[in-house]
Amino acid sequence: MNNNQTYSWQEALLYSHKMAQLTKAIWKSLEKDWQEWVKPFDLNLNEHHVLWITYHLRGATISEISKFGVMHVSTAFNFSKKLEQRGLITFSKKEDDKRSTYVKLTDEGVRLFEQTMDAHDPERNSVMKASLPLKNIYGSFPEFQELESIVKHLYGDEYLEILDRSIESLKDET
Amino acid sequence: MNNNQTYSWQEALLYSHKMAQLTKAIWKSLEKDWQEWVKPFDLNLNEHHVLWITYHLRGATISEISKFGVMHVSTAFNFSKKLEQRGLITFSKKEDDKRSTYVKLTDEGVRLFEQTMDAHDPERNSVMKASLPLKNIYGSFPEFQELESIVKHLYGDEYLEILDRSIESLKDET
Repeated sequence: MNNNQTYSWQEALLYSHKMAQLTKAIWKSLEKDWQEWVKPFDLNLNEHHVLWITYHLRGATISEISKFGVMHVSTAFNFSKKLEQRGLITFSKKEDDKRSTYVKLTDEGVRLFEQTMDAHDPERNSVMKASLPLKNIYGSFPEFQELESIVKHLYGDEYLEILDRSIESLKDET
Repeated sequence: MNNNQTYSWQEALLYSHKMAQLTKAIWKSLEKDWQEWVKPFDLNLNEHHVLWITYHLRGATISEISKFGVMHVSTAFNFSKKLEQRGLITFSKKEDDKRSTYVKLTDEGVRLFEQTMDAHDPERNSVMKASLPLKNIYGSFPEFQELESIVKHLYGDEYLEILDRSIESLKDET
Protein backbone atom coordinates (compact mmCIF):
# COMPACT_ATOMS: atom_id res chain seq x y z
CA MET A 1 0.00 0.00 0.00
CA ASN A 2 1.30 3.39 -0.98
CA ASN A 3 1.76 5.67 2.02
CA ASN A 4 -0.24 8.41 0.38
CA GLN A 5 -3.15 6.12 -0.32
CA THR A 6 -5.85 4.87 1.97
CA TYR A 7 -6.46 1.76 -0.16
CA SER A 8 -4.43 -1.05 -1.70
CA TRP A 9 -4.25 -1.70 -5.44
CA GLN A 10 -6.00 -5.07 -5.01
CA GLU A 11 -8.72 -3.69 -2.77
CA ALA A 12 -9.48 -0.92 -5.28
CA LEU A 13 -9.60 -3.40 -8.17
CA LEU A 14 -11.89 -5.86 -6.35
CA TYR A 15 -14.21 -3.03 -5.39
CA SER A 16 -14.48 -1.54 -8.85
CA HIS A 17 -14.94 -5.00 -10.41
CA LYS A 18 -17.81 -5.74 -8.05
CA MET A 19 -19.38 -2.32 -8.65
CA ALA A 20 -19.09 -2.77 -12.42
CA GLN A 21 -20.77 -6.20 -12.32
CA LEU A 22 -23.59 -5.03 -10.05
CA THR A 23 -24.37 -1.66 -11.64
CA LYS A 24 -24.06 -3.01 -15.20
CA ALA A 25 -26.47 -5.84 -14.35
CA ILE A 26 -29.03 -3.53 -12.78
CA TRP A 27 -28.74 -0.70 -15.29
CA LYS A 28 -29.01 -3.06 -18.30
CA SER A 29 -32.19 -4.54 -16.86
CA LEU A 30 -33.71 -1.10 -16.20
CA GLU A 31 -32.65 0.01 -19.69
CA LYS A 32 -34.36 -2.98 -21.33
CA ASP A 33 -37.63 -2.48 -19.45
CA TRP A 34 -37.55 1.27 -20.15
CA GLN A 35 -37.07 0.67 -23.90
CA GLU A 36 -40.02 -1.78 -23.91
CA TRP A 37 -42.20 0.68 -22.03
CA VAL A 38 -41.76 3.62 -24.45
CA LYS A 39 -41.46 1.69 -27.74
CA PRO A 40 -45.24 1.75 -28.41
CA PHE A 41 -44.95 5.58 -28.50
CA ASP A 42 -42.23 5.42 -31.14
CA LEU A 43 -39.69 6.75 -28.64
CA ASN A 44 -36.35 5.37 -27.57
CA LEU A 45 -35.00 5.58 -24.04
CA ASN A 46 -32.89 8.69 -24.71
CA GLU A 47 -35.77 10.55 -26.34
CA HIS A 48 -38.04 9.64 -23.45
CA HIS A 49 -35.38 10.71 -20.97
CA VAL A 50 -35.20 14.14 -22.68
CA LEU A 51 -38.99 14.47 -22.40
CA TRP A 52 -38.87 13.27 -18.78
CA ILE A 53 -36.25 15.81 -17.72
CA THR A 54 -37.89 18.65 -19.64
CA TYR A 55 -41.31 17.82 -18.19
CA HIS A 56 -40.23 17.52 -14.57
CA LEU A 57 -37.85 20.48 -14.55
CA ARG A 58 -40.50 22.53 -16.44
CA GLY A 59 -38.01 23.27 -19.19
CA ALA A 60 -34.27 22.55 -19.26
CA THR A 61 -31.09 23.51 -21.08
CA ILE A 62 -29.30 21.00 -23.31
CA SER A 63 -26.49 20.99 -20.80
CA GLU A 64 -28.87 20.09 -17.94
CA ILE A 65 -30.36 17.32 -20.08
CA SER A 66 -26.87 16.06 -20.88
CA LYS A 67 -25.79 16.10 -17.26
CA PHE A 68 -28.88 14.59 -15.65
CA GLY A 69 -29.52 12.22 -18.56
CA VAL A 70 -25.88 11.05 -18.33
CA MET A 71 -25.48 11.44 -22.08
CA HIS A 72 -22.98 13.35 -24.15
CA VAL A 73 -23.99 16.93 -25.04
CA SER A 74 -24.15 15.99 -28.74
CA THR A 75 -26.37 12.98 -27.92
CA ALA A 76 -28.68 15.19 -25.86
CA PHE A 77 -28.81 17.72 -28.71
CA ASN A 78 -29.39 15.15 -31.47
CA PHE A 79 -32.26 13.41 -29.69
CA SER A 80 -33.77 16.78 -28.76
CA LYS A 81 -33.56 17.76 -32.43
CA LYS A 82 -35.58 14.67 -33.38
CA LEU A 83 -38.22 15.54 -30.79
CA GLU A 84 -38.36 19.10 -32.12
CA GLN A 85 -38.92 17.77 -35.65
CA ARG A 86 -41.86 15.74 -34.30
CA GLY A 87 -43.31 18.91 -32.74
CA LEU A 88 -42.89 17.61 -29.18
CA ILE A 89 -40.47 20.28 -27.95
CA THR A 90 -39.32 23.76 -28.91
CA PHE A 91 -35.85 25.31 -28.76
CA SER A 92 -35.24 28.87 -27.58
CA LYS A 93 -32.53 31.15 -26.21
CA LYS A 94 -32.93 32.99 -22.96
CA GLU A 95 -32.56 36.77 -22.96
CA ASP A 96 -29.97 36.67 -20.17
CA ASP A 97 -27.99 33.71 -21.52
CA LYS A 98 -27.71 33.60 -25.29
CA ARG A 99 -25.27 30.68 -25.25
CA SER A 100 -27.57 28.06 -23.76
CA THR A 101 -30.24 26.31 -25.81
CA TYR A 102 -33.39 26.08 -23.76
CA VAL A 103 -35.83 23.20 -24.33
CA LYS A 104 -39.55 23.30 -23.56
CA LEU A 105 -42.32 20.79 -24.21
CA THR A 106 -45.11 21.72 -26.60
CA ASP A 107 -48.72 20.89 -25.66
CA GLU A 108 -48.35 17.84 -27.89
CA GLY A 109 -45.13 16.90 -26.03
CA VAL A 110 -46.84 17.20 -22.66
CA ARG A 111 -49.74 15.07 -23.92
CA LEU A 112 -47.47 12.34 -25.27
CA PHE A 113 -45.31 12.29 -22.14
CA GLU A 114 -48.38 11.98 -19.90
CA GLN A 115 -49.66 9.14 -22.09
CA THR A 116 -46.39 7.27 -21.56
CA MET A 117 -46.72 7.74 -17.79
CA ASP A 118 -50.30 6.43 -17.85
CA ALA A 119 -48.98 3.38 -19.68
CA HIS A 120 -46.31 2.64 -17.09
CA ASP A 121 -46.85 -0.79 -15.60
CA PRO A 122 -44.71 -1.48 -12.50
CA GLU A 123 -45.35 -5.20 -12.98
CA ARG A 124 -43.10 -5.03 -16.03
CA ASN A 125 -40.26 -3.43 -14.10
CA SER A 126 -37.91 -6.31 -13.29
CA VAL A 127 -35.64 -4.32 -10.95
CA MET A 128 -38.58 -3.07 -8.89
CA LYS A 129 -39.93 -6.62 -8.64
CA ALA A 130 -36.48 -7.96 -7.75
CA SER A 131 -36.42 -5.38 -4.92
CA LEU A 132 -39.70 -6.51 -3.36
CA PRO A 133 -38.06 -9.15 -1.12
CA LEU A 134 -36.00 -6.32 0.44
CA LYS A 135 -39.13 -4.19 0.78
CA ASN A 136 -40.92 -7.07 2.48
CA ILE A 137 -38.10 -7.39 5.01
CA TYR A 138 -37.52 -3.69 5.72
CA GLY A 139 -40.97 -2.25 5.07
CA SER A 140 -39.78 0.12 2.37
CA PHE A 141 -37.63 0.09 -0.75
CA PRO A 142 -33.89 0.56 -0.10
CA GLU A 143 -32.71 4.17 0.04
CA PHE A 144 -29.22 3.61 -1.41
CA GLN A 145 -27.62 6.51 0.42
CA GLU A 146 -24.16 5.09 -0.33
CA LEU A 147 -24.88 5.18 -4.07
CA GLU A 148 -26.08 8.76 -3.64
CA SER A 149 -22.83 9.67 -1.92
CA ILE A 150 -20.80 8.16 -4.77
CA VAL A 151 -22.89 9.95 -7.42
CA LYS A 152 -22.54 13.22 -5.51
CA HIS A 153 -18.75 12.90 -5.59
CA LEU A 154 -18.81 11.88 -9.25
CA TYR A 155 -21.21 14.44 -10.69
CA GLY A 156 -21.49 17.12 -8.00
CA ASP A 157 -24.31 18.22 -5.70
CA GLU A 158 -26.28 19.50 -8.68
CA TYR A 159 -27.02 15.98 -9.92
CA LEU A 160 -28.71 15.00 -6.66
CA GLU A 161 -30.52 18.34 -6.49
CA ILE A 162 -32.02 17.68 -9.92
CA LEU A 163 -32.90 14.13 -8.81
CA ASP A 164 -34.71 15.57 -5.77
CA ARG A 165 -36.57 18.11 -7.90
CA SER A 166 -37.62 15.43 -10.33
CA ILE A 167 -38.79 13.15 -7.51
CA GLU A 168 -40.77 15.98 -5.87
CA SER A 169 -42.36 16.74 -9.22
CA LEU A 170 -43.29 13.07 -9.70
CA LYS A 171 -44.88 13.04 -6.24
CA ASP A 172 -46.96 16.11 -7.04
CA GLU A 173 -48.20 14.94 -10.39
CA THR A 174 -48.87 11.24 -9.97
CA MET B 1 -52.89 0.41 -3.74
CA ASN B 2 -54.02 -2.87 -5.24
CA ASN B 3 -54.90 -5.47 -2.61
CA ASN B 4 -52.62 -8.02 -4.19
CA GLN B 5 -49.69 -5.66 -4.24
CA THR B 6 -47.37 -4.64 -1.46
CA TYR B 7 -46.48 -1.35 -3.16
CA SER B 8 -48.28 1.62 -4.71
CA TRP B 9 -47.93 2.66 -8.34
CA GLN B 10 -46.28 5.96 -7.32
CA GLU B 11 -43.87 4.34 -4.87
CA ALA B 12 -42.76 1.82 -7.51
CA LEU B 13 -42.26 4.57 -10.09
CA LEU B 14 -40.26 6.81 -7.74
CA TYR B 15 -38.08 3.88 -6.74
CA SER B 16 -37.31 2.76 -10.27
CA HIS B 17 -36.66 6.35 -11.40
CA LYS B 18 -34.15 6.83 -8.59
CA MET B 19 -32.50 3.48 -9.28
CA ALA B 20 -32.25 4.30 -12.99
CA GLN B 21 -30.64 7.68 -12.32
CA LEU B 22 -28.15 6.27 -9.80
CA THR B 23 -27.13 3.08 -11.59
CA LYS B 24 -26.95 4.78 -15.01
CA ALA B 25 -24.70 7.50 -13.55
CA ILE B 26 -22.36 5.02 -11.87
CA TRP B 27 -22.28 2.44 -14.66
CA LYS B 28 -21.61 5.11 -17.35
CA SER B 29 -18.66 6.42 -15.34
CA LEU B 30 -17.23 2.92 -14.82
CA GLU B 31 -17.77 2.18 -18.53
CA LYS B 32 -15.88 5.30 -19.60
CA ASP B 33 -12.90 4.59 -17.33
CA TRP B 34 -12.85 0.94 -18.41
CA GLN B 35 -12.80 1.92 -22.11
CA GLU B 36 -9.90 4.33 -21.47
CA TRP B 37 -7.99 1.68 -19.54
CA VAL B 38 -8.06 -1.00 -22.28
CA LYS B 39 -7.91 1.25 -25.37
CA PRO B 40 -4.08 1.23 -25.50
CA PHE B 41 -4.33 -2.56 -26.00
CA ASP B 42 -6.64 -2.12 -28.98
CA LEU B 43 -9.49 -3.69 -27.02
CA ASN B 44 -12.96 -2.39 -26.30
CA LEU B 45 -14.80 -2.95 -23.03
CA ASN B 46 -16.76 -5.96 -24.31
CA GLU B 47 -13.67 -7.68 -25.67
CA HIS B 48 -11.84 -7.07 -22.41
CA HIS B 49 -14.82 -8.37 -20.46
CA VAL B 50 -14.73 -11.60 -22.51
CA LEU B 51 -11.01 -11.98 -21.73
CA TRP B 52 -11.65 -11.17 -18.06
CA ILE B 53 -14.38 -13.78 -17.64
CA THR B 54 -12.46 -16.42 -19.59
CA TYR B 55 -9.29 -15.76 -17.59
CA HIS B 56 -10.88 -15.82 -14.15
CA LEU B 57 -13.21 -18.75 -14.76
CA ARG B 58 -10.33 -20.64 -16.46
CA GLY B 59 -12.39 -21.07 -19.60
CA ALA B 60 -16.08 -20.31 -20.13
CA THR B 61 -18.96 -21.07 -22.47
CA ILE B 62 -20.43 -18.33 -24.67
CA SER B 63 -23.58 -18.56 -22.60
CA GLU B 64 -21.62 -17.97 -19.35
CA ILE B 65 -19.87 -14.99 -20.97
CA SER B 66 -23.21 -13.64 -22.14
CA LYS B 67 -24.79 -14.05 -18.71
CA PHE B 68 -21.98 -12.72 -16.54
CA GLY B 69 -20.94 -10.07 -19.06
CA VAL B 70 -24.59 -8.91 -19.25
CA MET B 71 -24.45 -8.92 -23.04
CA HIS B 72 -26.63 -10.60 -25.63
CA VAL B 73 -25.46 -14.08 -26.71
CA SER B 74 -24.79 -12.76 -30.23
CA THR B 75 -22.73 -9.86 -28.81
CA ALA B 76 -20.70 -12.29 -26.69
CA PHE B 77 -20.17 -14.51 -29.72
CA ASN B 78 -19.22 -11.68 -32.11
CA PHE B 79 -16.64 -10.14 -29.78
CA SER B 80 -15.25 -13.59 -28.97
CA LYS B 81 -14.93 -14.22 -32.72
CA LYS B 82 -12.82 -11.05 -33.07
CA LEU B 83 -10.57 -12.19 -30.21
CA GLU B 84 -10.22 -15.61 -31.86
CA GLN B 85 -9.17 -13.93 -35.13
CA ARG B 86 -6.47 -12.06 -33.17
CA GLY B 87 -5.22 -15.38 -31.75
CA LEU B 88 -6.17 -14.45 -28.17
CA ILE B 89 -8.72 -17.21 -27.57
CA THR B 90 -9.69 -20.58 -29.05
CA PHE B 91 -13.13 -22.10 -29.53
CA SER B 92 -13.86 -25.74 -28.82
CA LYS B 93 -16.71 -28.14 -28.14
CA LYS B 94 -16.78 -30.32 -25.06
CA GLU B 95 -17.14 -34.07 -25.55
CA ASP B 96 -20.09 -34.25 -23.15
CA ASP B 97 -21.88 -31.14 -24.44
CA LYS B 98 -21.62 -30.65 -28.19
CA ARG B 99 -24.06 -27.73 -28.18
CA SER B 100 -22.01 -25.29 -26.09
CA THR B 101 -19.08 -23.37 -27.54
CA TYR B 102 -16.27 -23.36 -25.05
CA VAL B 103 -13.80 -20.46 -24.96
CA LYS B 104 -10.22 -20.67 -23.68
CA LEU B 105 -7.40 -18.11 -23.67
CA THR B 106 -4.29 -18.82 -25.73
CA ASP B 107 -0.86 -18.10 -24.19
CA GLU B 108 -0.93 -14.83 -26.12
CA GLY B 109 -4.39 -14.08 -24.69
CA VAL B 110 -3.19 -14.73 -21.14
CA ARG B 111 -0.14 -12.50 -21.75
CA LEU B 112 -2.22 -9.63 -23.14
CA PHE B 113 -4.80 -9.88 -20.36
CA GLU B 114 -2.09 -9.81 -17.68
CA GLN B 115 -0.53 -6.77 -19.37
CA THR B 116 -3.88 -4.95 -19.14
CA MET B 117 -4.05 -5.81 -15.43
CA ASP B 118 -0.53 -4.50 -14.85
CA ALA B 119 -1.59 -1.28 -16.55
CA HIS B 120 -4.61 -0.79 -14.29
CA ASP B 121 -4.30 2.48 -12.41
CA PRO B 122 -6.86 2.86 -9.59
CA GLU B 123 -6.18 6.61 -9.60
CA ARG B 124 -7.99 6.75 -12.94
CA ASN B 125 -11.06 4.99 -11.59
CA SER B 126 -13.52 7.77 -10.83
CA VAL B 127 -16.09 5.58 -9.06
CA MET B 128 -13.44 4.11 -6.74
CA LYS B 129 -12.19 7.60 -5.95
CA ALA B 130 -15.74 8.88 -5.42
CA SER B 131 -16.18 6.03 -2.90
CA LEU B 132 -13.16 6.98 -0.78
CA PRO B 133 -15.12 9.39 1.45
CA LEU B 134 -17.35 6.43 2.42
CA LYS B 135 -14.29 4.24 2.98
CA ASN B 136 -12.77 6.92 5.19
CA ILE B 137 -15.92 7.02 7.30
CA TYR B 138 -16.58 3.27 7.58
CA GLY B 139 -13.05 1.88 7.28
CA SER B 140 -13.84 -0.21 4.20
CA PHE B 141 -15.53 0.15 0.82
CA PRO B 142 -19.32 -0.35 0.89
CA GLU B 143 -20.49 -3.96 0.50
CA PHE B 144 -23.74 -3.23 -1.36
CA GLN B 145 -25.57 -6.28 -0.08
CA GLU B 146 -28.88 -4.78 -1.17
CA LEU B 147 -27.65 -4.48 -4.76
CA GLU B 148 -26.50 -8.10 -4.53
CA SER B 149 -29.94 -9.16 -3.38
CA ILE B 150 -31.57 -7.36 -6.32
CA VAL B 151 -29.12 -8.88 -8.81
CA LYS B 152 -29.72 -12.33 -7.31
CA HIS B 153 -33.46 -11.97 -7.88
CA LEU B 154 -32.88 -10.58 -11.38
CA TYR B 155 -30.29 -13.01 -12.74
CA GLY B 156 -30.36 -15.95 -10.30
CA ASP B 157 -27.88 -17.32 -7.77
CA GLU B 158 -25.49 -18.28 -10.55
CA TYR B 159 -24.61 -14.67 -11.30
CA LEU B 160 -23.42 -14.03 -7.74
CA GLU B 161 -21.62 -17.38 -7.67
CA ILE B 162 -19.65 -16.39 -10.78
CA LEU B 163 -18.98 -12.98 -9.19
CA ASP B 164 -17.60 -14.73 -6.10
CA ARG B 165 -15.44 -17.06 -8.18
CA SER B 166 -14.06 -14.15 -10.16
CA ILE B 167 -13.33 -12.17 -6.97
CA GLU B 168 -11.58 -15.16 -5.35
CA SER B 169 -9.53 -15.60 -8.50
CA LEU B 170 -8.57 -11.90 -8.49
CA LYS B 171 -7.49 -12.22 -4.84
CA ASP B 172 -5.28 -15.21 -5.64
CA GLU B 173 -3.58 -13.71 -8.64
CA THR B 174 -3.05 -10.08 -7.77
